[in-house]
Amino acid sequence: MIIVLNQNDQTTIENLKRHFGADHDVFVHQNRVAVQGITAEDLDDAERQAAVELIDQVPAAVQGSRLFHPEDTVIKTKHSLIGGANFSMMAGPCSVESLAHVTKMASVAKANGATVLRGGAFKPRTSPYSFQGLGEDGLKYLRQAADKYDMDVLTEVMDDEHVEMVAKYTDIFQIGARNMQNFSLLKAVGKTNIPVMLKRGMSATVDDVLNATEYIAAGGNHNIMIAERGIRTFDNKYTRNTMDVGVVPVLQKLTHYPVIIDPSHAAGHTEFVTPLGLAGVAAGASGLVVEIHDDPAHAFSDGAQALKPDEFKTLADKAFAIRELLASQPVQQEKAGR
Amino acid sequence: MIIVLNQNDQTTIENLKRHFGADHDVFVHQNRVAVQGITAEDLDDAERQAAVELIDQVPAAVQGSRLFHPEDTVIKTKHSLIGGANFSMMAGPCSVESLAHVTKMASVAKANGATVLRGGAFKPRTSPYSFQGLGEDGLKYLRQAADKYDMDVLTEVMDDEHVEMVAKYTDIFQIGARNMQNFSLLKAVGKTNIPVMLKRGMSATVDDVLNATEYIAAGGNHNIMIAERGIRTFDNKYTRNTMDVGVVPVLQKLTHYPVIIDPSHAAGHTEFVTPLGLAGVAAGASGLVVEIHDDPAHAFSDGAQALKPDEFKTLADKAFAIRELLASQPVQQEKAGR
Amino acid sequence: MIIVLNQNDQTTIENLKRHFGADHDVFVHQNRVAVQGITAEDLDDAERQAAVELIDQVPAAVQGSRLFHPEDTVIKTKHSLIGGANFSMMAGPCSVESLAHVTKMASVAKANGATVLRGGAFKPRTSPYSFQGLGEDGLKYLRQAADKYDMDVLTEVMDDEHVEMVAKYTDIFQIGARNMQNFSLLKAVGKTNIPVMLKRGMSATVDDVLNATEYIAAGGNHNIMIAERGIRTFDNKYTRNTMDVGVVPVLQKLTHYPVIIDPSHAAGHTEFVTPLGLAGVAAGASGLVVEIHDDPAHAFSDGAQALKPDEFKTLADKAFAIRELLASQPVQQEKAGR
Amino acid sequence: MIIVLNQNDQTTIENLKRHFGADHDVFVHQNRVAVQGITAEDLDDAERQAAVELIDQVPAAVQGSRLFHPEDTVIKTKHSLIGGANFSMMAGPCSVESLAHVTKMASVAKANGATVLRGGAFKPRTSPYSFQGLGEDGLKYLRQAADKYDMDVLTEVMDDEHVEMVAKYTDIFQIGARNMQNFSLLKAVGKTNIPVMLKRGMSATVDDVLNATEYIAAGGNHNIMIAERGIRTFDNKYTRNTMDVGVVPVLQKLTHYPVIIDPSHAAGHTEFVTPLGLAGVAAGASGLVVEIHDDPAHAFSDGAQALKPDEFKTLADKAFAIRELLASQPVQQEKAGR
Repeated sequence: MIIVLNQNDQTTIENLKRHFGADHDVFVHQNRVAVQGITAEDLDDAERQAAVELIDQVPAAVQGSRLFHPEDTVIKTKHSLIGGANFSMMAGPCSVESLAHVTKMASVAKANGATVLRGGAFKPRTSPYSFQGLGEDGLKYLRQAADKYDMDVLTEVMDDEHVEMVAKYTDIFQIGARNMQNFSLLKAVGKTNIPVMLKRGMSATVDDVLNATEYIAAGGNHNIMIAERGIRTFDNKYTRNTMDVGVVPVLQKLTHYPVIIDPSHAAGHTEFVTPLGLAGVAAGASGLVVEIHDDPAHAFSDGAQALKPDEFKTLADKAFAIRELLASQPVQQEKAGR
Repeated sequence: MIIVLNQNDQTTIENLKRHFGADHDVFVHQNRVAVQGITAEDLDDAERQAAVELIDQVPAAVQGSRLFHPEDTVIKTKHSLIGGANFSMMAGPCSVESLAHVTKMASVAKANGATVLRGGAFKPRTSPYSFQGLGEDGLKYLRQAADKYDMDVLTEVMDDEHVEMVAKYTDIFQIGARNMQNFSLLKAVGKTNIPVMLKRGMSATVDDVLNATEYIAAGGNHNIMIAERGIRTFDNKYTRNTMDVGVVPVLQKLTHYPVIIDPSHAAGHTEFVTPLGLAGVAAGASGLVVEIHDDPAHAFSDGAQALKPDEFKTLADKAFAIRELLASQPVQQEKAGR
Repeated sequence: MIIVLNQNDQTTIENLKRHFGADHDVFVHQNRVAVQGITAEDLDDAERQAAVELIDQVPAAVQGSRLFHPEDTVIKTKHSLIGGANFSMMAGPCSVESLAHVTKMASVAKANGATVLRGGAFKPRTSPYSFQGLGEDGLKYLRQAADKYDMDVLTEVMDDEHVEMVAKYTDIFQIGARNMQNFSLLKAVGKTNIPVMLKRGMSATVDDVLNATEYIAAGGNHNIMIAERGIRTFDNKYTRNTMDVGVVPVLQKLTHYPVIIDPSHAAGHTEFVTPLGLAGVAAGASGLVVEIHDDPAHAFSDGAQALKPDEFKTLADKAFAIRELLASQPVQQEKAGR
Repeated sequence: MIIVLNQNDQTTIENLKRHFGADHDVFVHQNRVAVQGITAEDLDDAERQAAVELIDQVPAAVQGSRLFHPEDTVIKTKHSLIGGANFSMMAGPCSVESLAHVTKMASVAKANGATVLRGGAFKPRTSPYSFQGLGEDGLKYLRQAADKYDMDVLTEVMDDEHVEMVAKYTDIFQIGARNMQNFSLLKAVGKTNIPVMLKRGMSATVDDVLNATEYIAAGGNHNIMIAERGIRTFDNKYTRNTMDVGVVPVLQKLTHYPVIIDPSHAAGHTEFVTPLGLAGVAAGASGLVVEIHDDPAHAFSDGAQALKPDEFKTLADKAFAIRELLASQPVQQEKAGR
């Protein structure tokens, strides 16, 4: 249950912690206190009287809920503000292939407005015999390339044992779709203070995604963003996955974490990446994460879905234009109206 | 197989018809001749020499294919141009409720740029005990309301026996999602020359949709548009269906028929209709079809997803703005580049 | 709401009909009266006192519900008893191809315990250019073949205009999966007294299926059976559809109509038909409907999934053996225990 | 590609290893050699002449393929034979709750033919605030209970860091559905020689499952069984998941690993567990893994789907009876015929 208090009623907050802290999870956000597993009847008179509002239907992912934390989370990294009124472009190669190559891709990304450089050094491949990434060397190249262009690094960590090592190089952890419910890994990144991009699993419901964020938040890390990268449906002949663009406004209603669109994995084919990316922007996403490559035919992985530099420029220009157009109209009012 | 000829090579067209017409379906579009069920070896020497190009991998839905008909279909009704470079807004109540009400909704639709008035007089309801529509009276009201505001009528026909009667009132037939593979009905509207909006079935693949269009085209009616209204997936807790926005560029690549987005049925809840509609526009849809109501709480059907007039104004304004923004950039070139 | 009365309380039944019949749908089954759209407060004192039990949470498909009709429906045709403790084998070719061929298939079906001969004369094909069936001639052949072996005929009707004609030849109408929500067709067969096999649509939920049965029951025809033939999921590489065997006990709990398994369309490939059919029997299905062909490679349609006579014999022998094994154990008690 | 040699042609096996071993993955099973990433043209004349057969279309999961390893894998544990002509019953509580409780459940399992005792000590719960299992204490209780009744232990390992510790107590590792593509974990259990039950992910295709087994096999551990526990589809109102019973014969065709059915997670509700379990047996599964509890209402987790002892007895008796019935008929011949 969530107890909403008057601003700065520190006394009741301390009372509630003392009262319930030993036996229950208690979370505090400003003037809101969430106590897991109690009902209004468990409150004492003083607590009940101090309450401005009692919210008893609370989702399992309470810390991620707008009911507990109404305002947007804005994640601050060295070079980016992600969430709220901001729009963030993130781009880079699927795999880090070499220092020279990732540096070149960083320059393309940066030139088109990206502040985050993505790239994989540990790759979750369907077959154990496929290229598995350059490992720590890849992370070093990625870091160097990002630093050269004053960008943040976004890269996948696949394993809780690797969290410490990857943390040395990255500004944002990516948790891949296949690991969305790898709870050991979620707990491990939850103990760091490095922002996390959690990719929605291929068949994860909205509630599943929110519960997965809570595994991170439970460790104390609230710098979480959620990425939609397409779900699995009955039709995958022409696109790799089905992009569920509706999840953008749905998640924005339910949670305060920024929602990012990954049109590359959703589309799976270059020709569909731009329309899907623009659809995500028009639906209100806080950013895009896009795979780019100057020579897709020879990419180490996922070449079929990588945009070439000029294609990425087209997407980026239109994406920023749509975002600007929507921002100049009263979008925020609508949101408040929900 | 498709035989591409020189422009105006009427002689070879006639030869091909004579040669294959008795035993095969033969379709002609400008300088392209499709003959079902033959291979290059079945052509005689003169035919083979006259061919500029031979295309042997042809989808079952040949008349709908870009391979047979490369340029966009533009549907002309009295008040609308649908497809190609045009953008069409279509709006109205889910059910026609009364003459006064549908007329009021027509004025709202028209004031915000709609040229097509939608409204249901025969309703395909999940339960036989739910409101089934006003029937022919509803059609009369709809026609009157549309005429008053110089709009086209779009309404559902559920039954091949009703085609003739509905044809007296409508400018565009709607085939509902549940009837997408009601082949008797598809054949019946295929014998008219009234444009048809075919709604994608809840679990219809892209190929299923294209094959369904072919049932209409086989009857001689080529004024077909396809509407995406959300598909059925594993997650329908927060939205009624999952809008598959990726189908817009996929269909535009494969077929020349206009693709329309119905964000109302996809969302199922008012608050998500506008982001979904805008996503559809940004992905390149040729139009939107939107349910509106001035008093959704008392709508005869589907009130939960109807936009109120001011909400519809917001959607329409932004939709036209995004379309204009994209049109002023080189969208067509991209398409050609595919 | 359902009002359960004492046995033979005809007086209250008549009272309820008089009281509510003008404004509400009222259905009576033995000592149970269902009145749509009322609550307990709408009953008068006498009615309330006469009630043994009031059930207010009633599914939309009330006549199909076990709450309204607790005992199993057993459908009686000339040669078969379908439902209840009975087990029915139905088999035949996908398409009726000729009198000779369908007669041969009837002999195979009969020899292995089938009492129902299936065969398509009107075929719902994905493409309009595929073989569409022999039409009324096919029906005649099917009827002759069935009569020769004292079997019932089961054949698809695709169109409400055809109901009368097909009725002249068939003992059981089949409504195909694509037409499961073709409400005009459902209403048309609902006005006959010929049993109906309703095939579950590819993406129909259990509630959708039950609501579709209600369109038939609403017309007065209660001789309904439901066939599971596989649903559409994300994986259709090795089987044509995903057989949802769990729907057998789920439907048996919710409805009194017999549930039949169609392993042929679920599997799509001969080698998987037998295991799927046996799974259906073990789950408690009231029967199987199986496609058979003596020369599958040259079948007019769906040859890939047709069992050859010796394969069908294996399936049928094992199916009857499993059914017998389960029947000799206390299956009914379990059911009662639910 | 797979090169099939004469029996005991050790010379060519050694040649192939020498020739390709440095640059390619080379696997040998009896007289079959799989070399990843080569074509027939890469073989030298002697190799080509020695080959009895060359198979060039090989799935990514080559070691799991019947093409590489035609005969069934039979897994031997201290108390069980799993796969081939054997049928294995595995049962136990969802969570280990106490030594006394798991011991009681072991006695129930054993009394009804189970040779494997399942129980969770580390639980992958959707919410971080749910019961997460007793941890290593739970493993100790489970081991003691199994030893008392001469049973094998089956328990989930969620984390590669735990593999060594869990290995001290278990006879079979379970990899949960959510971790099916946790490649770090798969590699970790692949380095042990303890049998692994890999549960199919909720939206994993057959190819995904096979590729996941290959991550285990690539480490040298070939004692793998695959468990179907239901997939995610559009309908989960009445069952927790949709049991894909068709995967049993499909997997048996493609791979030599035993296929086990978990009807408990598929059903999600006690009343549907038995029909689903029997369906799995009838489809040919090599075993069942079933959740049991003597007081489901107070189970620490998943009580809704736990069978009570007498319900489990009914399932087990019927399951063994169906298996026996099918075995006494020529099942093996069919398999060979595929």
